[in-house]
Amino acid sequence: MNETDVIVIGGGISGLIAARDIAAAGHSVRVLEARERVGGRTHSQPVDAETGRFWVDLGGQWLGPSQARMASLVSGFGLETFPTYTDGRKILELRGKVSRYSGTIPRLSPLKLASVQLGLNAVRRAANKTDPAAPWDIADALALDGRTVETFKRAKVRSGAARSLVDAAVRGVFGAEPSEISLLYFLSYVQGGGGLMNLIETEDGAQATRFVKGAQLVAERLAHDLGDAVLTQAPVREVVQRGDQVDVHTGSRAFRSRYVIVAMAPAMAGRIAFSPTLPPDRDELYRRFGMGATTKMHLVYPEPFWRGDGLSGEVVAPDGPVDLVWDNSPHDASSGVLLAFIVGDKARRLAHSPAEERRRIVVERLTRWFGPRAAQPAHVLEKDWTSDPWSRGCPTGLLPPGVLATFGRELRAPFGRIHWAGTETARGWAGYMEGAVEAGERAAVEVLDRS
Amino acid sequence: MNETDVIVIGGGISGLIAARDIAAAGHSVRVLEARERVGGRTHSQPVDAETGRFWVDLGGQWLGPSQARMASLVSGFGLETFPTYTDGRKILELRGKVSRYSGTIPRLSPLKLASVQLGLNAVRRAANKTDPAAPWDIADALALDGRTVETFKRAKVRSGAARSLVDAAVRGVFGAEPSEISLLYFLSYVQGGGGLMNLIETEDGAQATRFVKGAQLVAERLAHDLGDAVLTQAPVREVVQRGDQVDVHTGSRAFRSRYVIVAMAPAMAGRIAFSPTLPPDRDELYRRFGMGATTKMHLVYPEPFWRGDGLSGEVVAPDGPVDLVWDNSPHDASSGVLLAFIVGDKARRLAHSPAEERRRIVVERLTRWFGPRAAQPAHVLEKDWTSDPWSRGCPTGLLPPGVLATFGRELRAPFGRIHWAGTETARGWAGYMEGAVEAGERAAVEVLDRS
Repeated sequence: MNETDVIVIGGGISGLIAARDIAAAGHSVRVLEARERVGGRTHSQPVDAETGRFWVDLGGQWLGPSQARMASLVSGFGLETFPTYTDGRKILELRGKVSRYSGTIPRLSPLKLASVQLGLNAVRRAANKTDPAAPWDIADALALDGRTVETFKRAKVRSGAARSLVDAAVRGVFGAEPSEISLLYFLSYVQGGGGLMNLIETEDGAQATRFVKGAQLVAERLAHDLGDAVLTQAPVREVVQRGDQVDVHTGSRAFRSRYVIVAMAPAMAGRIAFSPTLPPDRDELYRRFGMGATTKMHLVYPEPFWRGDGLSGEVVAPDGPVDLVWDNSPHDASSGVLLAFIVGDKARRLAHSPAEERRRIVVERLTRWFGPRAAQPAHVLEKDWTSDPWSRGCPTGLLPPGVLATFGRELRAPFGRIHWAGTETARGWAGYMEGAVEAGERAAVEVLDRS
Repeated sequence: MNETDVIVIGGGISGLIAARDIAAAGHSVRVLEARERVGGRTHSQPVDAETGRFWVDLGGQWLGPSQARMASLVSGFGLETFPTYTDGRKILELRGKVSRYSGTIPRLSPLKLASVQLGLNAVRRAANKTDPAAPWDIADALALDGRTVETFKRAKVRSGAARSLVDAAVRGVFGAEPSEISLLYFLSYVQGGGGLMNLIETEDGAQATRFVKGAQLVAERLAHDLGDAVLTQAPVREVVQRGDQVDVHTGSRAFRSRYVIVAMAPAMAGRIAFSPTLPPDRDELYRRFGMGATTKMHLVYPEPFWRGDGLSGEVVAPDGPVDLVWDNSPHDASSGVLLAFIVGDKARRLAHSPAEERRRIVVERLTRWFGPRAAQPAHVLEKDWTSDPWSRGCPTGLLPPGVLATFGRELRAPFGRIHWAGTETARGWAGYMEGAVEAGERAAVEVLDRS
């Protein structure tokens, strides 16, 4: 049997970081990845346009301020980045009315605006009382975990228009509806990313910076440095702890190690057959983790024509099938790319339609907002993450009410010789690449402390 | 490879009923059960007391009115049943004060009583608008599914004492906290059992009738009739659909059939590796199903001494570790048995304590309520269902907000040649033995219609 000191299950950023740190400490390590590629929820694809080749990200793609670990990785690898395009006015479609605005908050009637501000303030105040590193430990944990974000929204935001904007923000951040998410989970998550405003902002926010050659390059460079320690197309089915050994089985092969780090989304990790079985609390925690639903559709044009019209490319449209649009053109603007997000229940519903129908719906919207030139994209690249058998959703795991306060402390608790990484286990920036790095580093330290 | 027309995965009541109907129609069938026994969440155990042998149910145990399918099974097999003992007064402990009462609703101050009544009426009115056979189809489905039972309780029930009684009722029925459960799921579930009052009542309610020799006998008799078609210790890991065949793999063996019926709790079924993978909506539905947490502790005494004190044995005590107690003595009262329920978060918390400590806690409470004779049980039988690797909870699956309205219609939708049974898929009495039978019959009809 193939033996190493440590086996890491999952070749996303978190697992690869853990493996890097284990290897750097002089221990042998093996990474088992189910897919034929590394990168997990980062997945970059080249587009060969008439004007040359560039990359789009089908998965995670943005860096933001205060993400020190990712900043250091990026500069260490010498990866090129550039600011997300934000010049010009943004578009809002609300109740069938299309308007244009600058800044973060759309121009609304004073009453609606006040309602939005009250809602944001309520979130900020409540989030400030949470502890993203240990949400279960705060005084109000049980009460906050007994409510949905929807219930909170209805209590704090009175205007229907303002509620719709909250919906779009929540869908954009989680790929899920306010009705699915525990208020405690929501508040801890946004607090871990520096607050809701920080998460929804482009300039100086979580969507500030992009990779010239795609975000997957981070994982590819990490995997390159690990060499043949990384095995792809190796989906783990079973993990057996016996004495001081852990045996890890894929369909056809077996591997042995002294420690294991599971670096997967909790919703996927729970499908491995563990022997002995997971403790009941951890089992229940895993059983209840959902995944956000996000479909990213890239529409490629010969040039970013909207820029000439004084538009940034950003759209917020909570009432229609496409909640959010960004300018995702390459750094040199050699092509024009609009990135349409179909999120939450809309993504789940539209997943049942043929790709042609989804494309028609998106193009119709873009034409409404950006004019007839949007009607004929040269290329369309789409990724529905709910159909991906190894992610089953994007961008992040999410918890309904009644789980985090009760079972949350199991999230990082080692089980025998098994430790846990993955962005959902991060103590800050959970759900983001930054959280993936933090979690991978922490899991490696835990294992190194024992060996 | 071992071939039959149909394979049923799961040897609980639902799977065995499906297999019975398939076999009765002249088709070959095989039942694969992970455990070394049939019966699923029914599990009866003999107790050898000084006065002779009798049975206690570690799992599901009661029959109620309007459960026609179970009534017919019971009479068909000639199984002996008897009414649950209800003579005498019940005990209520609330805010440290112990009182005794008759009927369903404890004697409370008029204000608290009015609050309880308002709450029950609110549940009744709301539940009457649901459709247990298709909860996702009612007008308010999305709104109801965006809230927890906790949120509803806080809006409809003002008195703290009344809220505690609601908590005990919800914990008793679901093994879970009001904060974990979608309001839509809750209302549909109670409506499917004839209303909340019906579910919490003993006399003429869902706890009305018991089995002399234990409820597991139903599954054992069904399995007996199926003979060697039932295979135990055969945990299914993988189900592969290819052309018009379905291959079912346990760790060591493979079976082939034309159709498969999965008769498991959704939370467990989602752990099978399906190839091709489940459709995203069904996958997400399964991922989000939790299980209730219930620990049943039976305390056996030489005689049911409380009866002589004019007590029925029933206790409601929402504030302490034991929410509910019943008289679970054998039909001939040859021994006295008190059945203590530790439910919801309390069950999860106390699962971390040693068995001796849990026993000490329960005995201390029983002594408080029934006097010093409760202090020395001759036998104690305990079953913590959250630790059971093939159930991971009891009595039933439960859904948090944001799932049922969106993904619920997937619950019974066949996936290729795979059909779905199990009590959680029932159109009425979901979570009960009656629902298990209804679901098994329905799944068998579906398969027979295709073959």
